[in-house]
Amino acid sequence: MTHAKLGVCYYPEQWPPDLWPDDARRMADLGLSIVRIGEFAWSRLEPTDGNIQFDWLARSIDILADAGLDVVLGTPTATPPKWLFDKMPDMAQIAADGRRRKFGSRRHYCFSHQGYREECRRMVTLLGQKFGPHPAVTAWQIDNEFACHDTTHSFSDAALSGFRVWLNKKYQSIGNLNRQWGNVFWSMEYADFQEIELPNQTVTTANPAHWMDFYRYSSAQVCAFNRLQVDIIRKYAPGRDIVHNFMGRTLDFDHYDLGRDLDVSSWDSYPLGFLGDRMDVDDTHKAEFLRSGDPDFQAFHHDLYRSTSAGRWWVMEQQPGPVNWAADNPAPDKGMVRLWAWEAIAHGAEVVSFFRWRQVPYGQEQYHAGLLRPDGVAAPGFFEAQQVAREIADLALDLTTTETADVALVFDYPSAWAWSIHPQGAAFDYFNLLFGLYQALRKSGLSVDFVSSQSTQRLSQKILLVAGLFSWPETLRDQIAEFSGPVLIGPRTGSKTDGYSIPDGLPPDMEALFPGLKVSHVESLPAAVSMQADRGGGIKYWREFVDYDASRQTPLEQVAGVPVLLKQKNLYYLSAWPDETLALRLVKRLAVDAGFPPLSLPDGLRIRSRGSYTFIFNYGTSVIDLKQIFADPKPLFGPAELIRGTVSILGSAATIK
Amino acid sequence: MTHAKLGVCYYPEQWPPDLWPDDARRMADLGLSIVRIGEFAWSRLEPTDGNIQFDWLARSIDILADAGLDVVLGTPTATPPKWLFDKMPDMAQIAADGRRRKFGSRRHYCFSHQGYREECRRMVTLLGQKFGPHPAVTAWQIDNEFACHDTTHSFSDAALSGFRVWLNKKYQSIGNLNRQWGNVFWSMEYADFQEIELPNQTVTTANPAHWMDFYRYSSAQVCAFNRLQVDIIRKYAPGRDIVHNFMGRTLDFDHYDLGRDLDVSSWDSYPLGFLGDRMDVDDTHKAEFLRSGDPDFQAFHHDLYRSTSAGRWWVMEQQPGPVNWAADNPAPDKGMVRLWAWEAIAHGAEVVSFFRWRQVPYGQEQYHAGLLRPDGVAAPGFFEAQQVAREIADLALDLTTTETADVALVFDYPSAWAWSIHPQGAAFDYFNLLFGLYQALRKSGLSVDFVSSQSTQRLSQKILLVAGLFSWPETLRDQIAEFSGPVLIGPRTGSKTDGYSIPDGLPPDMEALFPGLKVSHVESLPAAVSMQADRGGGIKYWREFVDYDASRQTPLEQVAGVPVLLKQKNLYYLSAWPDETLALRLVKRLAVDAGFPPLSLPDGLRIRSRGSYTFIFNYGTSVIDLKQIFADPKPLFGPAELIRGTVSILGSAATIK
Amino acid sequence: MTHAKLGVCYYPEQWPPDLWPDDARRMADLGLSIVRIGEFAWSRLEPTDGNIQFDWLARSIDILADAGLDVVLGTPTATPPKWLFDKMPDMAQIAADGRRRKFGSRRHYCFSHQGYREECRRMVTLLGQKFGPHPAVTAWQIDNEFACHDTTHSFSDAALSGFRVWLNKKYQSIGNLNRQWGNVFWSMEYADFQEIELPNQTVTTANPAHWMDFYRYSSAQVCAFNRLQVDIIRKYAPGRDIVHNFMGRTLDFDHYDLGRDLDVSSWDSYPLGFLGDRMDVDDTHKAEFLRSGDPDFQAFHHDLYRSTSAGRWWVMEQQPGPVNWAADNPAPDKGMVRLWAWEAIAHGAEVVSFFRWRQVPYGQEQYHAGLLRPDGVAAPGFFEAQQVAREIADLALDLTTTETADVALVFDYPSAWAWSIHPQGAAFDYFNLLFGLYQALRKSGLSVDFVSSQSTQRLSQKILLVAGLFSWPETLRDQIAEFSGPVLIGPRTGSKTDGYSIPDGLPPDMEALFPGLKVSHVESLPAAVSMQADRGGGIKYWREFVDYDASRQTPLEQVAGVPVLLKQKNLYYLSAWPDETLALRLVKRLAVDAGFPPLSLPDGLRIRSRGSYTFIFNYGTSVIDLKQIFADPKPLFGPAELIRGTVSILGSAATIK
Repeated sequence: MTHAKLGVCYYPEQWPPDLWPDDARRMADLGLSIVRIGEFAWSRLEPTDGNIQFDWLARSIDILADAGLDVVLGTPTATPPKWLFDKMPDMAQIAADGRRRKFGSRRHYCFSHQGYREECRRMVTLLGQKFGPHPAVTAWQIDNEFACHDTTHSFSDAALSGFRVWLNKKYQSIGNLNRQWGNVFWSMEYADFQEIELPNQTVTTANPAHWMDFYRYSSAQVCAFNRLQVDIIRKYAPGRDIVHNFMGRTLDFDHYDLGRDLDVSSWDSYPLGFLGDRMDVDDTHKAEFLRSGDPDFQAFHHDLYRSTSAGRWWVMEQQPGPVNWAADNPAPDKGMVRLWAWEAIAHGAEVVSFFRWRQVPYGQEQYHAGLLRPDGVAAPGFFEAQQVAREIADLALDLTTTETADVALVFDYPSAWAWSIHPQGAAFDYFNLLFGLYQALRKSGLSVDFVSSQSTQRLSQKILLVAGLFSWPETLRDQIAEFSGPVLIGPRTGSKTDGYSIPDGLPPDMEALFPGLKVSHVESLPAAVSMQADRGGGIKYWREFVDYDASRQTPLEQVAGVPVLLKQKNLYYLSAWPDETLALRLVKRLAVDAGFPPLSLPDGLRIRSRGSYTFIFNYGTSVIDLKQIFADPKPLFGPAELIRGTVSILGSAATIK
Repeated sequence: MTHAKLGVCYYPEQWPPDLWPDDARRMADLGLSIVRIGEFAWSRLEPTDGNIQFDWLARSIDILADAGLDVVLGTPTATPPKWLFDKMPDMAQIAADGRRRKFGSRRHYCFSHQGYREECRRMVTLLGQKFGPHPAVTAWQIDNEFACHDTTHSFSDAALSGFRVWLNKKYQSIGNLNRQWGNVFWSMEYADFQEIELPNQTVTTANPAHWMDFYRYSSAQVCAFNRLQVDIIRKYAPGRDIVHNFMGRTLDFDHYDLGRDLDVSSWDSYPLGFLGDRMDVDDTHKAEFLRSGDPDFQAFHHDLYRSTSAGRWWVMEQQPGPVNWAADNPAPDKGMVRLWAWEAIAHGAEVVSFFRWRQVPYGQEQYHAGLLRPDGVAAPGFFEAQQVAREIADLALDLTTTETADVALVFDYPSAWAWSIHPQGAAFDYFNLLFGLYQALRKSGLSVDFVSSQSTQRLSQKILLVAGLFSWPETLRDQIAEFSGPVLIGPRTGSKTDGYSIPDGLPPDMEALFPGLKVSHVESLPAAVSMQADRGGGIKYWREFVDYDASRQTPLEQVAGVPVLLKQKNLYYLSAWPDETLALRLVKRLAVDAGFPPLSLPDGLRIRSRGSYTFIFNYGTSVIDLKQIFADPKPLFGPAELIRGTVSILGSAATIK
Repeated sequence: MTHAKLGVCYYPEQWPPDLWPDDARRMADLGLSIVRIGEFAWSRLEPTDGNIQFDWLARSIDILADAGLDVVLGTPTATPPKWLFDKMPDMAQIAADGRRRKFGSRRHYCFSHQGYREECRRMVTLLGQKFGPHPAVTAWQIDNEFACHDTTHSFSDAALSGFRVWLNKKYQSIGNLNRQWGNVFWSMEYADFQEIELPNQTVTTANPAHWMDFYRYSSAQVCAFNRLQVDIIRKYAPGRDIVHNFMGRTLDFDHYDLGRDLDVSSWDSYPLGFLGDRMDVDDTHKAEFLRSGDPDFQAFHHDLYRSTSAGRWWVMEQQPGPVNWAADNPAPDKGMVRLWAWEAIAHGAEVVSFFRWRQVPYGQEQYHAGLLRPDGVAAPGFFEAQQVAREIADLALDLTTTETADVALVFDYPSAWAWSIHPQGAAFDYFNLLFGLYQALRKSGLSVDFVSSQSTQRLSQKILLVAGLFSWPETLRDQIAEFSGPVLIGPRTGSKTDGYSIPDGLPPDMEALFPGLKVSHVESLPAAVSMQADRGGGIKYWREFVDYDASRQTPLEQVAGVPVLLKQKNLYYLSAWPDETLALRLVKRLAVDAGFPPLSLPDGLRIRSRGSYTFIFNYGTSVIDLKQIFADPKPLFGPAELIRGTVSILGSAATIK
């Protein structure tokens, strides 16, 4: 029987050593069991070139260990120090406009720079040798928040050299590249790989195939940079968990590729910061969830990152109060810090770790709340963390497993790249398309497993959704062929070959599965225009005009006389971007097909089952009586009437009315 | 008797040669007679430096010729290939922010670069020698869409050198330049032409006279670049039509200057793309005409470009379905592709050529519809083109001449430059001012000829409008003096000298014509502020306070007690920017003065007469009965009640009720 | 007994010398007594390196002197000529994006460039030697509008060198700098001052302490640049007034520091330009005051700049009609040019000088109105200036002194820098916070003295306000301790140490004055969200959660159950950004505490007392009867019922009803 653990992020180098023992004691007293340290400390670990200073770190680890705490040790490669940056000025990331990024914040390095990789190899090796054997160092974090601050794509000389080599390896001959990219168009043909430049700063858009390969190359560099460190840690710290902390709505590298090299995917969950800065929602929605966070955004990422490292995942950083980095930074409503932690646990998190222990009074994040205030007094988040710790201990829920969810939703990073490279419609955004479907599923009470488009493991969920997929891996078409439940294939899926061309047989490029179904042409619509569907709801942003074989496919929904949903046995083809109402109707159709009750949760209420428990969360402003949803609900824990910010748990008897 | 011809744009280099004969046959079967080819093919015509490969082009021309098709051969200078670009890296266009434009799209060259001009001379000479005599090559297109993607102004070293020489030639002495520019202001005086820099990147705005000369210089370079090629083609292909394809709302070079060197002005007509990306209209207007295009925007350009090469003009590229380059790209309503073609013919087009034959599945334009889909199946536009071809053949209209229109509207590119350089009011845009007047004329059923401000040919239209004119050519004031019909002189006209100063006698600088009329001062108004005129309608953006001689000039319209329209015999002076309602009232006044019936067309309906025919087009959503407008209408062709997207033609008997 | 004087800005170099005598005569006839000249004339004073040409200037000064006019002579250092700029190309200002600013407008120099400082020393010395003894040159203006066009911060090599030296001097050791800045955060530690770079172009935000010191450094360079010239003029022109002309809402350098070196602070008052381009107000407000200017914006700056040079201040440039530099440029309503002049006089201006004498027909400002039109005819502003001149002469008001105002309002430039560097809430703007309080005070009929945060002179006003103060000077806390009237301490005050950290004892960092009061944490709110206060009005943008000692501090206002106003004896602590209504209620509370009548002026009406006179101004659209406000009002001058644009003056008997 496994319990979820709580943790915290801690920076001993920022505090006087005589505070360390007391900090450790207070952490343990609070009920925390894991502490992440070290990930920005290079200037203290090696103040000048070759001058290694690990003693302070060893001491701080020992102090934490003595208090019974486990340590996650971060490699400090997100913040190369000034002396190192000055030693190789060409290691700097170069922005798309050609400007060199300067020292003075973080993530100022270029992933392609081989010299910097060597410096990382050296430092991580030393750290691994020193701390790999330490019994308290039970996990390692590689770097910090890859891709954050738009740093995946670097337009540097190092990237250019690397890209040419990568292309050469991929295409073997320049003629092949010219053909694959279609460079006869606009006389873009090259005579040699050395002629190829990075695709920024062209007069009008560069070839999407050129961009697509640059995105692939850049993603591969992030993975290679990570793998270099993983390999070292595996060698010196065998048996320890290797983790990286992803961010929210960060799509520039393929998290499946990177997650494959990790033991555990983790992510940094900032519900209020994300609502403010990373969601495309209107002012009304922002005002409504200003202090609770969006009801689905965190759950989406919990589910997504559960899928990137074979099911093991943590929240590495959890917002404990106001943050500093969004345009506006409200304080969480009472109860939300606790609710967010429980939501993560309900989705299978092994660890929920708060960022950070004590608010630091200087530097860029001085407004970022900690569990403690800068003066060491407990901040509001402290008490909510404490409450969760006690509840975990008291409830002793059996959370050994995370079951297969109701729905499999294919998520594909290259598709996100493809549609940002060439959106064709200003509002077409891959994340928003997938998130809209996810919202509809979650509002219908269905649980979701994300699935990589490359997945070859037989899918055991009841419903399968594929939307906005750039290009088909053959294996995924096979998955669909074998899937017995309802399958929804969404708009723009299969609309390109892997080389960023229109497939010979036209989209959705699945003649074997949908004989006769062809997207003849498409249109994109301004955000201000929407169209009503005949049976309610409507479409926006994107519409396809589809030829179909009426003997096999039946139109089920129409918009202005044009079918937008076609059915062929268990397969549905959706040829437009559905609005919220239509998405809910579609999901209800799939749910009923798959034998689920047609549930519509009240506004702001969300549920998630794990093991025999059903967790219920109220993010909304209305008071919700569980009797509205469940037959004879008897909470194991929490109230039967939920106000905003409350959590209840039902036991195995929970049944939807 | 001349018929309009239909054509298409075709890229044989993008398709397997064994498709060529069938393509040619299908084009001919469709009813097309002209095919444009070759304009982006440099990398295939000369894959490496000096390695000339014209055989494939010769073969493809022969195949088209064998099918009975005429060919427009494009010079490939809009897409210099990579080896050439790498040979002279300083040929790149430099953006206003100083960044060099990279290879990887098109139009990446600087018009001022002499080395690139020599390369173009070489290539065009070879093409002229080879294909000039070919009987099927009946026309040549120079380059492609000059100025597109903001490429007229290059801030390169080549441009700087050229600009200094050009200034030296214009001003002869630096003292003269200092005086003309007024460089004593802010100590901007120069001691030598070599001291002068390009006007970008100054702390606050540079001297408008400095910018104005740079705009003139840049326009002259486009014309010189074009002329160099024209001269070669004239030599090797005597008797063939020389054409360039202009774009919509492209004002950075003077199309009258360039058009003078051509036989035929053509332009690329993208009604939906333009509505989305090149018109300053609100969301309601965009939604209303989303799939039909603006009712006046294309007509405006038809009329404008009819005037730039002495009446001969074509549509070189006509949108046949959704395009790829606007922010959003809807599909045309049924009937619109046909309607647009007929609208062009009604305005005098000799040729309407569709872009493109077959949708190309790769590269930047892979979402751009063709007459064929990528799989070779006919796309919706194919059938509309086919219908037009049949109708042209069946109707056999006599379209030998294009008559003088009702109204002469002066269009002046330097005025567009002047007011963009120094708007004084954020909303003051020359194009929008002229387009607003054009709309009012067209809604009143009046036909329009654009006239260059430099025109010295006696004007035979019935009404003359001059608005927003930067500076008076003496000849234009003479035209007005001799004009017997009503003349409207609009706001800001004559407000500057040719050297970009306020004229000594103050605007409108026409003391001989309007004795005593002086603009004392002006004000510009935020877009959110409008003012009502006493008799309906109102003004916005721009208002002048005018001194006048009450014994000669009579105020006719007032706004807040200040006259905005003054009349002196057949001359009107309009001293503010009129809103739609006021513009319609003004036009009605002029129409009545000139003996036209005071017509107001129903929303979305437009008419255009050519020869003895009156063409009627419905762009709007209402059904229009021709009886609303005409006495006893009997269409030669088309219905008497027009739904959206229909065309009707009345014969000579058409009379306005 | 002192009268206010009127003046004008004049550019003899821009007009034929034979116009000069007539211009001088007309100025004197108009009633002007002071003429500013010379401040942009370097290219005429030294057309080539070392070629000094002062004769024309001497002649023009003599002509003005002969007409009885005094001269303010400007140093021409805002417009270094081309030969000088080319001699030292590295003197150019470098923008934050790294782009070099080019020659061709003005203010193109970097304040840190020592070579340019030497050139200024040379030129100003020559001017001082030549014109210092001239009896008519009674004042000197240094440079022109420091900081205008975002020129305070230069990211040049010169600035970088200077910054390193400045930091070295300030911190003495790099270890000390690392500690003070908190560079352990994100491994930002330096080993040497030579490693430090300028804080622009980092990946994410640089350390706020880094930016703060760069702002301080940059402000110090402006002051040093000014002082260099002041010292020379003091030497060669003893007894003459030394003046600089500030701009509106220009916060990038510390005007108190600079003003200390001057005899007189002056500023350039452009009510319509500022309303359009420098105020954060909505379209409704802009439309309402489009042609009158904001009722408080100019008064704010009059009061502010009265405080920067110990009470002596002028308006150096007063808008006389439409200007050229705002996005839109309306013409003033009739009467406003006169009203603005009287408002300045009411606030203590010694001089009101109009910009400019005659509209110049060329160059960047050709749309900027003068008192004369370009053709020499009097423009509308001429007659209003004439009226003011006559009224000053006729009324002969005794304006010897400017009395201490009712309220002291602390203004602190470093606070403006701090919150722009790290706003934490997108809408948090120091100027707007202070301006909102100022508006509430002025609408309540209270007069305001601004006070530097460094002031050590005992405050004799009745009310004291401190809001948004970055960091406490100890002396200011002492001022509060000694202040007997009501004191309002506003949000975010004392929230940082001088080194840009959170103070050890937490904000507001005034334990001695407010024992037990601590800001536990803060939140910032999106502009679209506001919260209602229990007793009316509300808060926006910024909210603090405060711990307090209930035995000492009493909560007076609550928002959503959280106190936003606490009182302790005569001290108030306001812990949120008040909206207009709440600000008015707060001011009323303070006013009543201090014994003032609780006045609420009608919309658009404003009053200001000076000596025994009460000046009344109507900026609004309503007609205001003075009986609404005063008991038995008998104007010395002006009507008893004020329409928009009128001024009245009451004598000593004026009492609020």
